[in-house]
Amino acid sequence: MPFISDLVAAWQKNDSLLCVGLDPDPAKFSVHLQEREDAIYEFCKAIVDATADLACAFKPQIAYFAGESAEAQLEALIDYIHAEHPDIPVILDAKRGDIGATAAQYAREAFVRYQADALTVNPYMGFDSVEPYLEYADCGLIVLCRTSNPGGSDLQNLTVEGGRRLYQHVAQLVAEKWNKHGQAALVVGATFPAELADVRSIVGDLPLLVPGIGAQGGDVQATVTAGKTASGLGLMINSSRAILYAGKGEDFADAARKVALATRDEINRYR
Amino acid sequence: MPFISDLVAAWQKNDSLLCVGLDPDPAKFSVHLQEREDAIYEFCKAIVDATADLACAFKPQIAYFAGESAEAQLEALIDYIHAEHPDIPVILDAKRGDIGATAAQYAREAFVRYQADALTVNPYMGFDSVEPYLEYADCGLIVLCRTSNPGGSDLQNLTVEGGRRLYQHVAQLVAEKWNKHGQAALVVGATFPAELADVRSIVGDLPLLVPGIGAQGGDVQATVTAGKTASGLGLMINSSRAILYAGKGEDFADAARKVALATRDEINRYR
Repeated sequence: MPFISDLVAAWQKNDSLLCVGLDPDPAKFSVHLQEREDAIYEFCKAIVDATADLACAFKPQIAYFAGESAEAQLEALIDYIHAEHPDIPVILDAKRGDIGATAAQYAREAFVRYQADALTVNPYMGFDSVEPYLEYADCGLIVLCRTSNPGGSDLQNLTVEGGRRLYQHVAQLVAEKWNKHGQAALVVGATFPAELADVRSIVGDLPLLVPGIGAQGGDVQATVTAGKTASGLGLMINSSRAILYAGKGEDFADAARKVALATRDEINRYR
Repeated sequence: MPFISDLVAAWQKNDSLLCVGLDPDPAKFSVHLQEREDAIYEFCKAIVDATADLACAFKPQIAYFAGESAEAQLEALIDYIHAEHPDIPVILDAKRGDIGATAAQYAREAFVRYQADALTVNPYMGFDSVEPYLEYADCGLIVLCRTSNPGGSDLQNLTVEGGRRLYQHVAQLVAEKWNKHGQAALVVGATFPAELADVRSIVGDLPLLVPGIGAQGGDVQATVTAGKTASGLGLMINSSRAILYAGKGEDFADAARKVALATRDEINRYR
């Protein structure tokens, strides 16, 4: 099924707008895992099993796997999610941005090798850096728009011709031109709710992946109010560290579940 | 030695501004290589050996390795270059763009795991997406500025506040703020020589990595004239496909060498 349909189904099935970010940092793992060769896989698998009925998506961040030479564990993890939790789409967070033949290789990496359902990409190189991914008609493409970090303003907040900000321009480009086959979504950070509302007003019901709550300090009520669609959907609100490292002991997955449940429910209070 | 010093030494030692791009596509390999399990490594190794005295840098494009699950071959290739051709710096072309802890993981991937001397990065997320790399004081950071693809204009050519184009703003940001420790360079495509000249006027002697000649059609004379510094240096003019696939038979490396030599010499005519 297309990513967007899977996402809508997961929103409804789990009554959840929570995206669980998988940023596995072995230095933060429970001691009982740290000795294992497949610690990253085992850690993420436990998190996935503990939160699969509470999430609308899982989002592994490829940098954490690449930094640890753990590509095989990432393949195994996504295989596992598809096998055991087939209703929950997997977003590979890689923020790829390159053109033509190179983008085609990144698309193979994401959608063939890793079997991801969606990929995050960077818009700086323009439409032909996005086009090769669109051939994978069932896969989602989540374009960086307004990010939640302080330096996000360095470029994204510049006023461009026509009087809009660069992130508004990107939002409009994606909604009107790049979303040719209904595969697109946007990344918009939680730390600027007014801008989230602004993007929502530009892009209609396009799904928004929203990092920045939890450890990064974004306010849940403001985020949901600003970003939801009229039907109370439209958001993948990501939390990574606050869930993954809620507990430091052998019961880390139970602790993660508690935080995920509380976060999902808090989100739902404001839908 | 710092990347920038290595680059200057390689410019001078090989009398060359040619960067050899390593974009290995197994479908284009000589038949005698295609059966081999380490075909990507063997292909690139042959290209490297055939061109090491003609190049100022090698630039493996990580997407080609990731799409083929060939991370181990990339590690082996960079090890080989450092061991056999230690004077030629290696630029990992990955166009990474992410923040904080995630960027720190990408930095580990590029500079610790792969032992690259420099990395290409994307500026869209701003300074804190670049900062973690700067801790690797000997490593170069090559920031996307103006790319050679048609869609490059979608964002980079927008007029931003102050009346400049976005790529000019990026050039100035990098030259004045992000280049804190002298590690920075910029990517500027060869297909727009006037813009290359413009970036050169903004950034002083900062090195520019210039894709777009060869298969992508950029004019060598116009590129060198527009981009060189007063001392006839300052450029890493990249050619990938035109060199890599100059020959299709077992003598592909000889054919590659001929094209690399002709390209280096053509560049030198206009310095």
